[in-house]
Amino acid sequence: MKAIAVFPGKPNSMHLAELPKPTLDAVPGGRGVLVRLVRCGVDGTDKEINAAEYGQAPEGYDFLVTGHENFGQVEAVGPNVAGLQPGDYVVATVRRPGTSIYDRIGTYDMTTDDVYFEHGINRLHGFLTEYYADDPEYIVKVPRALRDVGVLVEPLSVPEKGILQAYEIQRRLRVWRPRKAAVLGAGTVGLFATMILRLRGLEVTTFGLIPKPYLNSDLVEALGARYLSTRTTSLREAATVYGPFDLMYEATG
Amino acid sequence: MKAIAVFPGKPNSMHLAELPKPTLDAVPGGRGVLVRLVRCGVDGTDKEINAAEYGQAPEGYDFLVTGHENFGQVEAVGPNVAGLQPGDYVVATVRRPGTSIYDRIGTYDMTTDDVYFEHGINRLHGFLTEYYADDPEYIVKVPRALRDVGVLVEPLSVPEKGILQAYEIQRRLRVWRPRKAAVLGAGTVGLFATMILRLRGLEVTTFGLIPKPYLNSDLVEALGARYLSTRTTSLREAATVYGPFDLMYEATG
Repeated sequence: MKAIAVFPGKPNSMHLAELPKPTLDAVPGGRGVLVRLVRCGVDGTDKEINAAEYGQAPEGYDFLVTGHENFGQVEAVGPNVAGLQPGDYVVATVRRPGTSIYDRIGTYDMTTDDVYFEHGINRLHGFLTEYYADDPEYIVKVPRALRDVGVLVEPLSVPEKGILQAYEIQRRLRVWRPRKAAVLGAGTVGLFATMILRLRGLEVTTFGLIPKPYLNSDLVEALGARYLSTRTTSLREAATVYGPFDLMYEATG
Repeated sequence: MKAIAVFPGKPNSMHLAELPKPTLDAVPGGRGVLVRLVRCGVDGTDKEINAAEYGQAPEGYDFLVTGHENFGQVEAVGPNVAGLQPGDYVVATVRRPGTSIYDRIGTYDMTTDDVYFEHGINRLHGFLTEYYADDPEYIVKVPRALRDVGVLVEPLSVPEKGILQAYEIQRRLRVWRPRKAAVLGAGTVGLFATMILRLRGLEVTTFGLIPKPYLNSDLVEALGARYLSTRTTSLREAATVYGPFDLMYEATG
């Protein structure tokens, strides 16, 4: 099968590679899930990997298949797989367990290991290819109704994590009930953060460079948030009028 | 009785003021505790208040008695005071409750009020005087054996709070067990932080400007910590050799 890969350490080495199609047996214990890729997002991380700023090939390979923003459909499952069946839409997680205590208790996104494993980024092939086979532990089922936007699940998980951690941190206050939030940046991540905070019931003010109206300011307003251009309103002025903000999400860069 | 006060807003206005000696009746419900000041520390905050950088007089006064690092001895107690008696050594808290939810649940050090109350700093007279009368709610008993260092209890509470909050924040990790800490600065607060972290069982590296040996480096080592001068070892070098640091306490300025 075809795959899009880089030679880590070599700038602008993105190329078409060839790999054998994986089989269910690649996963031990009859727990294999074979997934056909439907979509794969490409983002700044992929650009930086192609610029050879980081990225490492899996052991035994001189190339790394890129792509981590994945969305696929189950094609076959091993005999010991429950909860997933052919036809299901799925997203695979990107980071995989290492050896630290955080990895061992299932929070490998918090790993303290120096060496870590991320599909399409570090030591594991990515999803810019036709198929992958994996253990259900690392596969998230996406409702069929969301198939048009399922490829956004992985990037959405990034601001979801940040906002969840902010809430976890503020549990120290015992009675923290945030009411107003600011989101700095109205790109994809800023839009995600706006959406998450609106779903948590907050009044959200989202800041972008471009004066409204344009697509993303329309989307911010469709989410029930306020859009402000920093060209016309400074953060300080906005905080006086629409704040104080209990939570600020930084998504400018 | 005599008191040392400033005229808030007027630089270098520190002067000797006269106030009536407080009585137990100043506190309602028979809960008065009359305390004679034994010692009062003077720190950067007092210097800044004398420079008129902040500070506000209590309602009805044009001056503010300064001093918040207090240590005293109980002289008399009202009929409804339990747990304190004449002769006890005590420290009074500095911040007092306002109106926010944090004030109402007893964590007024976390107040979100714009207007707040701090003895010797904002809207309440301080302790650079001969006596105060207060409710036992705001009075901390200090063991007699600690009377020589009791005046350090209030400044010690500052790094105690910071380190406690760091631990509270990291509870989000569920299994956080810090082993190594760095303290930046070896002044009084840096020494306190070193001591607190050693008492929590951490390996501590404390950084100061001055090459050892001198008094504070000796004190750091007496606490079982490592002293390094940033003139001879950079933080980056030290982190490589003695880190990675799980917790860093900033006390440089």
